[in-house]
Amino acid sequence: MTEGSVTSHDVARIAGLSQSTVSRALRDDPRVTPETRERVLAAAASLGYVPNAMGRNLVLRKTRTIGMVVTDLGNPYYPNLIAPLHDELARLDYRMILFTEQVDGEQENADERDRLAGLVDRGVDGAVLTTSTLDGAVPRELQRRNLPFVYLTREVDGVPADAAVVDNALGASLMAAEVVRFGHRCVAAIFGPENTSTGRGRERGFRAGLRSAGVELPETHVRRGPFVVEAGQAAMHELMAQEPRPTAVICFNDLVAIGALNATRALGLRVPEDVSITGWDDLPMAAWDICQLTTVRQSMHEMARTAARLLVERIEGRAGGEPRRVLFEPELVLRATLGPPPA
Amino acid sequence: MTEGSVTSHDVARIAGLSQSTVSRALRDDPRVTPETRERVLAAAASLGYVPNAMGRNLVLRKTRTIGMVVTDLGNPYYPNLIAPLHDELARLDYRMILFTEQVDGEQENADERDRLAGLVDRGVDGAVLTTSTLDGAVPRELQRRNLPFVYLTREVDGVPADAAVVDNALGASLMAAEVVRFGHRCVAAIFGPENTSTGRGRERGFRAGLRSAGVELPETHVRRGPFVVEAGQAAMHELMAQEPRPTAVICFNDLVAIGALNATRALGLRVPEDVSITGWDDLPMAAWDICQLTTVRQSMHEMARTAARLLVERIEGRAGGEPRRVLFEPELVLRATLGPPPA
Repeated sequence: MTEGSVTSHDVARIAGLSQSTVSRALRDDPRVTPETRERVLAAAASLGYVPNAMGRNLVLRKTRTIGMVVTDLGNPYYPNLIAPLHDELARLDYRMILFTEQVDGEQENADERDRLAGLVDRGVDGAVLTTSTLDGAVPRELQRRNLPFVYLTREVDGVPADAAVVDNALGASLMAAEVVRFGHRCVAAIFGPENTSTGRGRERGFRAGLRSAGVELPETHVRRGPFVVEAGQAAMHELMAQEPRPTAVICFNDLVAIGALNATRALGLRVPEDVSITGWDDLPMAAWDICQLTTVRQSMHEMARTAARLLVERIEGRAGGEPRRVLFEPELVLRATLGPPPA
Repeated sequence: MTEGSVTSHDVARIAGLSQSTVSRALRDDPRVTPETRERVLAAAASLGYVPNAMGRNLVLRKTRTIGMVVTDLGNPYYPNLIAPLHDELARLDYRMILFTEQVDGEQENADERDRLAGLVDRGVDGAVLTTSTLDGAVPRELQRRNLPFVYLTREVDGVPADAAVVDNALGASLMAAEVVRFGHRCVAAIFGPENTSTGRGRERGFRAGLRSAGVELPETHVRRGPFVVEAGQAAMHELMAQEPRPTAVICFNDLVAIGALNATRALGLRVPEDVSITGWDDLPMAAWDICQLTTVRQSMHEMARTAARLLVERIEGRAGGEPRRVLFEPELVLRATLGPPPA
């Protein structure tokens, strides 16, 4: 049966409903119950019926649902992105569901990718990606399937899409300048994963900032790890055993910095009297009195809200052409964990 | 059209596919693409076709999907329930989606309830409830719609369902005894919301524990609030201004206790030398060196896994009859924030 030959009367007959009920259902009239609407949509879909713009959306199973793909659900970083994203989508009359697929960054394989993409494009109109690694398997698969998506915080070169990101290199160079301004000459860094745009951008900016200030960063004073507390804690123990001992340890994620704070507590070191520590993100817990973390603020709320808007505009055909990249300005937040080096 | 009169040939005709493809799709044969399977299901649904047990599941839109209903997504408590729940469901071959409906506990109204229930029973086989308040609007609505659900940590009297909960009263009485054993006679409490089973049970047990030890809890030394950092922080400031000043402040949630720790830091008080603080949950952050929180452990991982199993058994008809309530034993975890009272 071709589309042209089918009328709403055929849909009504298959659905066992009156033609006026079918029309109402396709108009999304509130007097139609969800059950009836489902029945009409199933019948319309089975016949390939395409009545008009709104009806087409319905037949094409527009769900007004956005999938957010999260891998490490146990990480307390995510609530700070998820909550504002959800709220903005609700304002735009979309609901959000989380796909809690645990993609192993090291061993992401074709099966996993297919499973994820299959999940995503069965039930959602678009996706928000926050944990893409630079190999870009998931974004590539979504692109192949023509599912609109937006990058939030992380992005992947070579797989263009709308993006809401912070200027990572800029923020890291500002932090480098601030650390030098406090008088530190022997600094250490705990960088993020090399296979993420955030890890790479921050490292690039920090190294450039130190270099331009004439401060060296010896490889003995560099550690790398995932954006989790345990990584910061372990790296900090190692760095505090280096000679000369760094007077400031710059972290590129607040959870990593909290891990470093934990290590100083365990070692009996005072912050910032014995060693300074800085983070990145400005999570709510960075402002806790027990942390008082000097950090780089990226407006996670604003970025999440922007990502929601970019994606919805794309889904609804209100954004034609090239991907749009909204770049947010990072901002230093000076609290108690950065001070002058010990005399 | 009644069910009996429809055959798979009718489905094949409507779907525009061969009868053997339809059979394969209804058997969930992996050679059938998701798109084709969707088309078959839509056609079958539109005709009310019910082929057999497995086919019936498909037509009834069994999704092998569980909804977890979360209200306050920004709360760092949730990742600790969501991650193990997701993992256990995956092991049982179910996927989990989060319904991030923000139900205002104070003003939960019929519209909100309908919207939530509508969302839930369109796309999921069952639900996990973690944030039920004792008015029980959501569980009552799910019960009315015959959607299986399980209570995780919180439960609602009068709306029976499977439940994985901790013995709140017992844990709180153990903490009361421990605090008295350390020598405290002037204690304060920051209780949880009165409209939750967890808030109520913990208050009941703590009061009973103190009473049996002959220690009073004057109303001037009692505060109540939601399970969030800010509530603990504000309450702690008030309690530290009471005469006589309490030597121990017992909190019934780790985030509330962290808020209390923040207040002591801001006030320049040492913990536990000047005042002891305890929590409840044993979140990962309770063990951070910068917290070192004495708390009550409820095995959130085990509870979440149990909830997943109870729910799946119920959905798959392997649990007949009465709701099952699995009660977990609370356990004191002694760290650094509880010590003897100041001399």
